[in-house]
Amino acid sequence: MSATRMQLLSPRLFSRGRSELFAGCSGAQRPGAGAATRVRSLTSSPPLSSSSSSPDRALSSVSATRRGLPQEKMSENGVTSRAKILTIDTMNPTVKKVEYAVRGPIVARAVELERELLEGMKKPFAEVIKANIGDAHAMGQQPITFFRQVLALCSYPELLNDSTFPEDAKSRARRILQSCGGYSMGSYSASQGIDSVRQDVARYIERRDGGVPCDPDNIYLTTGASDGIVTMLKLLVCGEGADRTGVMISIPQYPLYSAALAELGAVQINYYLNEEKCWSMDISELQRALDEARQHCNPRALCIINPGNPTGQVQNRDCIEDVIRFAAKERLFLMADEVYQDNVYADGCQFHSFKKVLFDMGPEYSNTVELASFHSTSKCYMGECGFRGGYMEIINMDDEVKAQLTKLVSVRLCPPVPGQALMDLVVNPPQPGEPSYVNFIKERTATLSALADKAKLTEQVLNTVRGISCNPVQGAMYSFPSITIPEKAVKEATDMGQQPDMFYCMKMLEETGICLVPGSGFGQKAGTYHFRMTILPPTDKLKILLSKVKEFHQKFTQQYS
Amino acid sequence: MSATRMQLLSPRLFSRGRSELFAGCSGAQRPGAGAATRVRSLTSSPPLSSSSSSPDRALSSVSATRRGLPQEKMSENGVTSRAKILTIDTMNPTVKKVEYAVRGPIVARAVELERELLEGMKKPFAEVIKANIGDAHAMGQQPITFFRQVLALCSYPELLNDSTFPEDAKSRARRILQSCGGYSMGSYSASQGIDSVRQDVARYIERRDGGVPCDPDNIYLTTGASDGIVTMLKLLVCGEGADRTGVMISIPQYPLYSAALAELGAVQINYYLNEEKCWSMDISELQRALDEARQHCNPRALCIINPGNPTGQVQNRDCIEDVIRFAAKERLFLMADEVYQDNVYADGCQFHSFKKVLFDMGPEYSNTVELASFHSTSKCYMGECGFRGGYMEIINMDDEVKAQLTKLVSVRLCPPVPGQALMDLVVNPPQPGEPSYVNFIKERTATLSALADKAKLTEQVLNTVRGISCNPVQGAMYSFPSITIPEKAVKEATDMGQQPDMFYCMKMLEETGICLVPGSGFGQKAGTYHFRMTILPPTDKLKILLSKVKEFHQKFTQQYS
Repeated sequence: MSATRMQLLSPRLFSRGRSELFAGCSGAQRPGAGAATRVRSLTSSPPLSSSSSSPDRALSSVSATRRGLPQEKMSENGVTSRAKILTIDTMNPTVKKVEYAVRGPIVARAVELERELLEGMKKPFAEVIKANIGDAHAMGQQPITFFRQVLALCSYPELLNDSTFPEDAKSRARRILQSCGGYSMGSYSASQGIDSVRQDVARYIERRDGGVPCDPDNIYLTTGASDGIVTMLKLLVCGEGADRTGVMISIPQYPLYSAALAELGAVQINYYLNEEKCWSMDISELQRALDEARQHCNPRALCIINPGNPTGQVQNRDCIEDVIRFAAKERLFLMADEVYQDNVYADGCQFHSFKKVLFDMGPEYSNTVELASFHSTSKCYMGECGFRGGYMEIINMDDEVKAQLTKLVSVRLCPPVPGQALMDLVVNPPQPGEPSYVNFIKERTATLSALADKAKLTEQVLNTVRGISCNPVQGAMYSFPSITIPEKAVKEATDMGQQPDMFYCMKMLEETGICLVPGSGFGQKAGTYHFRMTILPPTDKLKILLSKVKEFHQKFTQQYS
Repeated sequence: MSATRMQLLSPRLFSRGRSELFAGCSGAQRPGAGAATRVRSLTSSPPLSSSSSSPDRALSSVSATRRGLPQEKMSENGVTSRAKILTIDTMNPTVKKVEYAVRGPIVARAVELERELLEGMKKPFAEVIKANIGDAHAMGQQPITFFRQVLALCSYPELLNDSTFPEDAKSRARRILQSCGGYSMGSYSASQGIDSVRQDVARYIERRDGGVPCDPDNIYLTTGASDGIVTMLKLLVCGEGADRTGVMISIPQYPLYSAALAELGAVQINYYLNEEKCWSMDISELQRALDEARQHCNPRALCIINPGNPTGQVQNRDCIEDVIRFAAKERLFLMADEVYQDNVYADGCQFHSFKKVLFDMGPEYSNTVELASFHSTSKCYMGECGFRGGYMEIINMDDEVKAQLTKLVSVRLCPPVPGQALMDLVVNPPQPGEPSYVNFIKERTATLSALADKAKLTEQVLNTVRGISCNPVQGAMYSFPSITIPEKAVKEATDMGQQPDMFYCMKMLEETGICLVPGSGFGQKAGTYHFRMTILPPTDKLKILLSKVKEFHQKFTQQYS
């Protein structure tokens, strides 16, 4: 499907399928909902011509299908046409409910605009800047030389004879290859991940957490953090109706969570971060959300993203303690998404892992609270998204469940081995005295301090704009400012069936080439509007981007006042 | 969990969770089954001490949980212990139903035996030979030099200045990098896959299928073929009760299918391959399976593995035509697993893609029959399993469904970029006249002809054993011989609660170090027994392996006669 077509169909296709216009088609859990059995009109109608599937027709089609009769029709040219088997009305209804704003219609339009520019079409901008996704290398961040040297050595071991490669890179490559079947990254690894990599991850966690022990058997390597998060949610979800598993997620959230919960048919329980207090977590708000949810589902897990995505806050130690106490008291499985653990910029802020705090709280908590924490090669100073590397550590998981987890991950054979190798390098980087150490530290520091500068710059510039209010970007890779959208614009958007901040971002894209994600894709308090913008572009470009955003906002405000 | 522990818990954990011993816990679709709400005994009991969750206790625990009261108990040392939130009784029941024999308990035991050997324990063998999985490089197959050179260049582009790399490898690397954001494999790609790679895939398919057109928009790059297959099944599954989606799979099958269907809660419809006719497909058997299934579910898809896994047959053109006609008549979405398309060895056999045959049958079929076909970097002459590369092509998919598919894959961001790069090389290898061409052809031919020799050797040797009967290995990478298990052994296995062929394979592993997968893991006609053995070990090792299998079988037969 071309970007044009995708744009044409959106936003309806990207939010809810049209089948949900018809009663009985929308509920995944609805007993006998029979979405499978509804069949579209026999003649092939264009996708958006509507309401051919009236209940009567649908029912008669069902009977025909169930009797095994083919549904054929002779067209004028004598060729038999058949109704599609798989249509929007007969596909998995939970999949239709999935939304993923970070790669939604606005990005499809951005891709299309890029093509149009290439084809020579005239636009009010020379370049599309994609500040929609935390994709560091795409924004010009350079990979860590040492990591890429080891990956090249592992890919083509002939290079181990090349004297231009440093010895520490070679020894890391040899160690990884020795753990691979047949000395090749082309072999499957153990489904849980390469043993030696899991050992290195465990030692890294012990160092990070000041000696709190970590058992490599509790480490599962993953295909990026998303894979680990979905796998854990998959284990947790069960029950029907009022017994259905509920999972608490922050609002604003990273939309992987809502997407996964929709697909699994779990109940999403929203707790709101406090924008006035720099997007902090309030226990009273957790309690409110939980108490309300208990009326209609079975809340079993609490997800935290720290440092926050899209909100950029870094939780302090006391807050984490409170959250752990809350989870223990309320019997919630904790899921800590800690993929931005090295991305902390603000003075006085520090990353505390949930595991470390848990163990500091003593055996009453450390022996009982169930926790999964997630990390990735995609963020921090690495930004190696394309390799899809990550790990999860599970704490206090029931042994039988763990065996089930091991079985479950075995079905997908193994995480990509190059991603596992990269994860190994992240947790076992060059050490003082090794030939690559100085350069590694130099590169890492340069990247992280540039990010810190850009976090500050973004906050400062955005806060100079009337009608934009931006919390400090304490960590992670995004700003999530609140924006004032004039009532006239809200009305125009609503009349078009669009979220006002989608309307705003789409307009910005068309006029400036800047691709942001509307706050509605992450969730926000009703009546408030935001966008998420990455701080990743190189400083020069970021400055241009910010001044364009400023200019656009002023123009937009004027236009709709 | 250590291998020992895993072994201890198996096979129960690897087949069905103990919760299914209790009424009401097993049904994923059961309305209000409430598996989520069953809570294990409050004191922490060892995992296998049973039946603490009597209905009464469970119910009272439920109420406590639903009221939000913490379930705590003071132990003797004053430390509060809590019942686990996530237990075998309260986890996702569909996950418990998943089985995956290829990496099941027998492989866990093989890994353990390897460790025991390393630790110096005495065994009746010096080495464990894992013939359980199609993992070519682990068995000593060498990667294609050109592929690895390009991957090294893409990983560490500094090497583009290295004069020892051939120009064609460099130009491929440049083309791939130019398609990556920021010229880095560390950037996310489009979720559907890198544009230029999808274009190359489309051209490859056109060449393979004698010019049948292929639209790159119909290509989705995947994280191995498994990922594509699961994604397609996910789109297809819906309905409840008698409307639940049924999916036809061959028996014997590759257990990814049964695992995915179990996890999705779909109905598995078994059609049996005809072992007497070299594991061929009979339309009458398809019809029988379908007619029976229509009594209790809604059959919507038909999966074919060609060349066959685990059975090694290669379908002829007529058979494929018949299958397509059947699918059209019966309104079944076709899924063609064609990952072994280059692995065809037997004289007179040839690979025919479902797509090519479909288009040869004329517009009545080519304009209507919905088809997804899957390919991978893991098999054929490449054997690059660890990179997790693959693609799927979709034919005649409804546009709205396609938009949903694109949305669904976007949630996982993108397939691993090194795997995409590798897929690109597979579909766009060195061409005549390019510097790497001669060596590429030499390496590819050597690998494929060695596989052909080993296919023949395996069949020949196994057929010399009384009580073993092996069909020709026409293609793929496995033999799946039928084995006669003496009644006494069947009884002993049954008394132990084990499948007779699991009993047989486990004994073989303990006595010879050879790791095979019992036929029961793939499915087989009741009363017949098989094992799957890869033909991948180097010829010398394969000869030893085959003679050990022969010896073991004779001894086993004697022992139980």
